[in-house]
Amino acid sequence: MTDWEAKAAAKRAQRDALLPKDTLLPSAPTDLDVSSVPATSGILSARELEITGTPSITALLDALKARTYSAEEVVSAFCRRAAIAHQLTNCLTEIFFDRALAHARDLDAEYARTGRPRGPLHGLPVSLKEQIAVRGVERSFGFVGWLGRVPESDAAITTLLVEAGAVPYCITNVAQHLGFGAAVNNVFGETCNPHNRNLTPGGSSGGEGALIALRGSVLGVGSDIGGSVRIPAGFSGLYSLRPSYQRFPYEGTCNSQEGQESLRSVLGPMAATVDGLRLAFKAVIDGRPWRLDPVVLRMPWSEERYRLAEHGGGERLVFGMMSDDGFVRAAPPYARALADVKAALETAGHTVVPWKAYDAERGYALFGEVWMADGHKDLYDTLALSGEPRVGPLGSGPETLLEDEVTITKYWEIQYRKQRFLKEQLDHWNRTAEHTGTGRPVDAIICPVSATPPQTLRGRQYYGYTAWCNLADLPSAVIPVTRVNPAKDLKVTRDDYYNWLDKELWEMYDPEVYKNGPIGVQIIGQKDEDEAVIRMAEIVDAALKASKSC
Amino acid sequence: MTDWEAKAAAKRAQRDALLPKDTLLPSAPTDLDVSSVPATSGILSARELEITGTPSITALLDALKARTYSAEEVVSAFCRRAAIAHQLTNCLTEIFFDRALAHARDLDAEYARTGRPRGPLHGLPVSLKEQIAVRGVERSFGFVGWLGRVPESDAAITTLLVEAGAVPYCITNVAQHLGFGAAVNNVFGETCNPHNRNLTPGGSSGGEGALIALRGSVLGVGSDIGGSVRIPAGFSGLYSLRPSYQRFPYEGTCNSQEGQESLRSVLGPMAATVDGLRLAFKAVIDGRPWRLDPVVLRMPWSEERYRLAEHGGGERLVFGMMSDDGFVRAAPPYARALADVKAALETAGHTVVPWKAYDAERGYALFGEVWMADGHKDLYDTLALSGEPRVGPLGSGPETLLEDEVTITKYWEIQYRKQRFLKEQLDHWNRTAEHTGTGRPVDAIICPVSATPPQTLRGRQYYGYTAWCNLADLPSAVIPVTRVNPAKDLKVTRDDYYNWLDKELWEMYDPEVYKNGPIGVQIIGQKDEDEAVIRMAEIVDAALKASKSC
Repeated sequence: MTDWEAKAAAKRAQRDALLPKDTLLPSAPTDLDVSSVPATSGILSARELEITGTPSITALLDALKARTYSAEEVVSAFCRRAAIAHQLTNCLTEIFFDRALAHARDLDAEYARTGRPRGPLHGLPVSLKEQIAVRGVERSFGFVGWLGRVPESDAAITTLLVEAGAVPYCITNVAQHLGFGAAVNNVFGETCNPHNRNLTPGGSSGGEGALIALRGSVLGVGSDIGGSVRIPAGFSGLYSLRPSYQRFPYEGTCNSQEGQESLRSVLGPMAATVDGLRLAFKAVIDGRPWRLDPVVLRMPWSEERYRLAEHGGGERLVFGMMSDDGFVRAAPPYARALADVKAALETAGHTVVPWKAYDAERGYALFGEVWMADGHKDLYDTLALSGEPRVGPLGSGPETLLEDEVTITKYWEIQYRKQRFLKEQLDHWNRTAEHTGTGRPVDAIICPVSATPPQTLRGRQYYGYTAWCNLADLPSAVIPVTRVNPAKDLKVTRDDYYNWLDKELWEMYDPEVYKNGPIGVQIIGQKDEDEAVIRMAEIVDAALKASKSC
Repeated sequence: MTDWEAKAAAKRAQRDALLPKDTLLPSAPTDLDVSSVPATSGILSARELEITGTPSITALLDALKARTYSAEEVVSAFCRRAAIAHQLTNCLTEIFFDRALAHARDLDAEYARTGRPRGPLHGLPVSLKEQIAVRGVERSFGFVGWLGRVPESDAAITTLLVEAGAVPYCITNVAQHLGFGAAVNNVFGETCNPHNRNLTPGGSSGGEGALIALRGSVLGVGSDIGGSVRIPAGFSGLYSLRPSYQRFPYEGTCNSQEGQESLRSVLGPMAATVDGLRLAFKAVIDGRPWRLDPVVLRMPWSEERYRLAEHGGGERLVFGMMSDDGFVRAAPPYARALADVKAALETAGHTVVPWKAYDAERGYALFGEVWMADGHKDLYDTLALSGEPRVGPLGSGPETLLEDEVTITKYWEIQYRKQRFLKEQLDHWNRTAEHTGTGRPVDAIICPVSATPPQTLRGRQYYGYTAWCNLADLPSAVIPVTRVNPAKDLKVTRDDYYNWLDKELWEMYDPEVYKNGPIGVQIIGQKDEDEAVIRMAEIVDAALKASKSC
């Protein structure tokens, strides 16, 4: 065992020793689909299953406010369920249940004393991605070379969630370098998808995906620079929001490529039920995050925007829809999912028109040019701290990924081309007003979270369906629609492909391999329309649920 | 004469031939102070003097709406006065009076037909800096190598102003490369200060400064990356606003260092009277600039913010004040100006406390690191198009300014240090809440626009008093306070200096040389508090006027 392997193994052993003894599974499960294990293992009490299986986050918060549940018992139930989820999927990186329970007891005592809940999230346990600072909790980011780093203060998001009454209790696994849509690194290993453990839960915020899918959490915070809260939400059957990047505070969150500002990572909520998006977003914004983070806009929650004042009040929305961005066509299950969404929306009185992506190839190339501007130097420097290798999709390919850094002149030229592209894309969107019949451009765009269902653990990925929102800083919500069903989602042959990647990903699709993999879609709004996107996600989700109950 | 000199001379001759014959001065004036020439030359009629001497922009707009003046006669009066201003200070680069008059006649006809003014700026002539696109008007940016470039469409700001009823009629002179606080380049030569023609009107938007100082315009648009609308406002005795950079649309405005996003240039209004800041800002924001520019925030005009809802309604404000940032102390006239402002504010019921700059040296160094990241390659490449030399402050110093471009890794490291600095500075500001007695941090900061009065035409400059707002993206308004008065603003000796620049600038001060040079101050708010800053500038201006009338 090399030095770095020994350090990583020691860290994992230390972590696993923190699992409560009475949550340990008698034997390692062998099923691919372990989603029912938390309910059937007999480890959780009926009350713990009721709490963790809450029909909505709102219902759970109401029960906390009504003191039907104490904060302590809610936090305890989720700690115990998270421990089970971890044994099934390897989703946790840091465990601090004892501290969370003490925190919950403080909340209960305060509530008893003052008669007032701490805030809108009183008593709600929240899970956080392995990059968000919690004072005193080690933060290695999945790099062996960063083991031993312990933040001395909370990240702004942690502060705001705690001020709102939430209780952090665990940290979740990530992709190395946050560099791909899975969750594997040399410190913590790989997280798998509880619906089919041959598949990834997505990433880079994949630990959150697996944890919330198993209801080891109902609300977590991930981050997204090219799809990293949306891909794991889609692949794990959850809800998430990539906010506009200056709404949610990033202060105190570490990352690779620190100081890269052209394409900024943004934190966003991931949730078991759709109300989690509004609850988390509003609680954070109402906490005035601009106090704590100089990047955050002084832009309060807009109830008017949430009520879709600029979208005709939301009565007759016009959605643009695409399952093929003209560069890589999405796999067959997405076409079925989108057809279901379309039918549901039409039944609810809305209109769905085709959306033509604005030169997805050019947009994706620009995304890559910024992402690769340092020729992966930052990644290599960090790996060199411990001697650990690249892993996951970063681990395949040539011996070294290192290219030359571009010059500043070239970098500014890339950014200038990006600016021109975004202007053209904005005009493209606004020109749809000529055809919607409402006088408005299409109110939102609905499209897959990925070209593929949740891949096998080392499958190649294409991030174009999510990354265009990062390039343009568009808010995007994800909602779950269906699962891969071999009886319905047959493999389809095509005669023509756009390019080698389109061909490779299309041919990779196999309904048996991807069986049961969750299929999610995005609802994408124009820049700064976060509140509107949250509301439209609720509308689409409600329409889908209504259509399924028919 | 070299080829580039011949091209520039031809351009200037072509421009000057567009001056209306009946506005030509009989002889070149020789006085240093030419501020009264427009009124005394006999060229303008009493009615033209009344129009151009309007006590406020609001009064002029009211008269246009009441049809006391037609748009045509207002535009004509300002064209003629601008022609005189140009002969006195060399402030114009492009002249399109005939087109503006036709535009004004259209507005008059539309008003007669519909009974409704075009918009809030109906009939108001506006001047624009030599970088803002007006369809069909050559835009050389002051580079000989860019002569012949003619935009095919309007910049977003032009579109919005025209939609609001304004009438562009001329373009104004700039610093080469927008690189310093004066207005000289090889195409158009140098603009001087009408209050003392040995001095600069400031820059880089110096043409606007001189033009508005002579009331050849009452409202113009400049741009600011380190002080370029504020320094010329301060040095010319005007008002201006550096908005937060994502409020005012930059789309369609050319610049050096295209694609540099770390320290973004922003457009801002420059005005003869304080109401111009609100009128211009609100008209542009009400035009929904996010339709036209993907960088602009979907952030409507906030009447609540303008009413200072977060600042106790504006009744009892607490201002932080500084005349010495701890790196370069401002010249004696600024100390007198700030004392006058302090007394006026206290009389009006507000409080003024000392403000300690947060490590101005470090902030200024960071500003310089970004600005110099390409080692001036962009400037040299552009100069090489024609063979023209560097001029102004860029023209002095070593044979070549060219340094190596920094690497991307270094650039991201600079940006990371910038982010850390801005977080510390935000905390520094917010901590003042412990001492204001209002529970709020200081509501705004008042400080000089520069360490020096308007310099002689080649004087060295220090941009630290303005550039820190660019680094942190803080909105800042400028108001005029006084003029250099040799009887009051004596030279003061100091025993100690912070550094060589502090010493050089302090010793450079000479009340006779700078005689009559305008002295302005900034009112600086927190990020995105544009509306609040506009209101606070009005409050400070009113307090000063009340104190002067005592």
